[in-house]
Amino acid sequence: MIPEEILRSLVTQTDSKLVMVVMDGIGGLPVRGKTELEAATIPNLDRLASKSICGLVDPISYGITPGSGPSHLALFGYDPISYGIGRGVMEALGIGLKLTKDDLTARGNFATIDEKGIIIDRRAGRISTEKSQETCQFLQQEIKEVEGAQVSIYPGKEHRFVIVFRAEELQDDLTDADPQKEGLKAKGTESLTQKAQRTAEIVNGYLKRVNEILRPFHPANTMLLRGFSKVPNIPSMSERFKLRPAAIATYPMYLGLARLVGMEVLKTGETLRDEVETLKDHFSEYDFFYIHFKKTDSAGEDGDFQKKVKAIEEIDRIFPSILKLKPNVLVVTGDHSTPAVLKAHSWHPNPILLHAAYTRADGIRRFTERQCQKGQLGRFPAKEVIPLMLANGLKLKKFGA
Amino acid sequence: MIPEEILRSLVTQTDSKLVMVVMDGIGGLPVRGKTELEAATIPNLDRLASKSICGLVDPISYGITPGSGPSHLALFGYDPISYGIGRGVMEALGIGLKLTKDDLTARGNFATIDEKGIIIDRRAGRISTEKSQETCQFLQQEIKEVEGAQVSIYPGKEHRFVIVFRAEELQDDLTDADPQKEGLKAKGTESLTQKAQRTAEIVNGYLKRVNEILRPFHPANTMLLRGFSKVPNIPSMSERFKLRPAAIATYPMYLGLARLVGMEVLKTGETLRDEVETLKDHFSEYDFFYIHFKKTDSAGEDGDFQKKVKAIEEIDRIFPSILKLKPNVLVVTGDHSTPAVLKAHSWHPNPILLHAAYTRADGIRRFTERQCQKGQLGRFPAKEVIPLMLANGLKLKKFGA
Repeated sequence: MIPEEILRSLVTQTDSKLVMVVMDGIGGLPVRGKTELEAATIPNLDRLASKSICGLVDPISYGITPGSGPSHLALFGYDPISYGIGRGVMEALGIGLKLTKDDLTARGNFATIDEKGIIIDRRAGRISTEKSQETCQFLQQEIKEVEGAQVSIYPGKEHRFVIVFRAEELQDDLTDADPQKEGLKAKGTESLTQKAQRTAEIVNGYLKRVNEILRPFHPANTMLLRGFSKVPNIPSMSERFKLRPAAIATYPMYLGLARLVGMEVLKTGETLRDEVETLKDHFSEYDFFYIHFKKTDSAGEDGDFQKKVKAIEEIDRIFPSILKLKPNVLVVTGDHSTPAVLKAHSWHPNPILLHAAYTRADGIRRFTERQCQKGQLGRFPAKEVIPLMLANGLKLKKFGA
Repeated sequence: MIPEEILRSLVTQTDSKLVMVVMDGIGGLPVRGKTELEAATIPNLDRLASKSICGLVDPISYGITPGSGPSHLALFGYDPISYGIGRGVMEALGIGLKLTKDDLTARGNFATIDEKGIIIDRRAGRISTEKSQETCQFLQQEIKEVEGAQVSIYPGKEHRFVIVFRAEELQDDLTDADPQKEGLKAKGTESLTQKAQRTAEIVNGYLKRVNEILRPFHPANTMLLRGFSKVPNIPSMSERFKLRPAAIATYPMYLGLARLVGMEVLKTGETLRDEVETLKDHFSEYDFFYIHFKKTDSAGEDGDFQKKVKAIEEIDRIFPSILKLKPNVLVVTGDHSTPAVLKAHSWHPNPILLHAAYTRADGIRRFTERQCQKGQLGRFPAKEVIPLMLANGLKLKKFGA
């Protein structure tokens, strides 16, 4: 990728409309010789691929399995290595929190310690979600503030929660307050810089009070915190690419990621049709749209090959409505692979197609991993997708004389 | 690309001859399904491609449309991001000036200001080339020197000209003396570094006198200067690659670029045949030849698809004479695409073929963008071409033990 500041100097605002369709976890692996895409009946995507340029896209680089944070940042045109998003922030985005620059977040576990403070269960016996909610509520009532910092605690599933400290000048150069192993003593956080010392004192002050309060509530008699992080300072897509970007997704985490790069979040419904209706309703108002379809990833994570095939086929049926809007540049790809056989994100590259006026179509007949590999886009890193879309939307000036 | 200093340590001098044929702006886009190359009848290039390894080459990176400066530097084996060439220098090369390290160049426009100094026409009503020549001549007579710096002014087409300040220690860390917009006040240059302050004073001193002299000559009653630049400090191809390189081209800009990287410029005629004759005449004297064919780009810039097809066919006919010389390594490619449908440089990758003894020929039957894409070279950045040519000329030692 051309250096950020050079790209920025080349961008020019035009009226052309760019649409990026992300089928979460689309890339797969063969079962009886065929990947999920190869097994699916997807006439609309196949036809679109035949009129597009195609390729294989690596979210980060060869062999690297990405989380949703870096894989999306890359698709949004940000170097996923330079722009890190901490674990705490990702968890907060996942439950739909709107973070400010004064917020320090962490991912938390309720856990069990013995009388010597040794961790004997890092998950407090996987207490029920209800029990965890109660505990969070109780803690929230007992401790609203510590040394000038507001504290908010948000329950997740089972023993998990998210914590947010809010105060000016909080720092996230902190070690995990979690030895990550049972049989070790629970510990506070340590500041990694001089500047973060006050923040460490606040967090440790909070933990001290929590331990006093939770002492009687075995098995959830302590908490472990990790992934201390603040919202990274990311220049917006409008600053970097002169785009007015909007996001259409149903899961909070993806909307949160979109907000991090300055996208407008559009209210939408639960179904794919709803998402496409939202695109249609707002098509005149923005010039970049990110539409996220989650079902493919969920089916992959479930290890349900057939369910993923069905999800792909369902998504295929909505493409005619997207094409009717005549976007100048349409990209269809995934953020990462989630092969059903692995039941998890993986390192495999994703197929990509780019449909626009000024291309030499590959004439590929199927939108699959192995067919797209034959296309002119070759195999390339995801962070190049936005420069390509901008170029195809005639939004980039010439570099050099 | 392997780091410059490592590559340098691997290069060894041999007698093998490398020839790089650059068909300017060769890459195209389809009209009625076929690109210019696909529509052309090019039996010689097709036969050559079938015995070569092929690929698609990106001048800079995905989506980036290059000017001729960066695209050529990349083909010459220089990272086009690290080695920038300023606008003023490119313009000076374009009119055939031989620059020294003491020269500070800028691109200039004659323009019109009102009595308050507000720019009302950035192009002085596009005054005729003759008028501009007269004005330049007049200014040259009036001001030959300012604060110890020699000043030379060279007319271009219409309102355009190139200016060269010559003195020791001039710097090019200067802002444009051009607000780039009408309705704003004309302004001087500002130094961006302490070191450039004296240079700014020289330029502004010159502009002050120019404004006094031109005052009566409405519409060309001021000048705007931009792209202040000096010849970049580029190590020569002979230093970096142990080559004795020579350039054969008909346009001054390409010869100027070749000179920047230390190529010998060979005198040649106006036709393709002349260029190939020159190659033949000097074949024993050098071991790297850059031959530039301009016609393909000019036809593309004109938006004349058929003319570009004809230009390609004309170039095709000279290949037997080149092959008769039996170069050890022959590369045929373009510096950038200039699709007739866009009438401009574009971001599309170019086809490339590399013909040499030690290759696994792809067996591709046509030298076109879409066929070359199927070749073993894959899609790769232009700066990798020289390392590939050196390797195929057995001019690179083993890296590491």
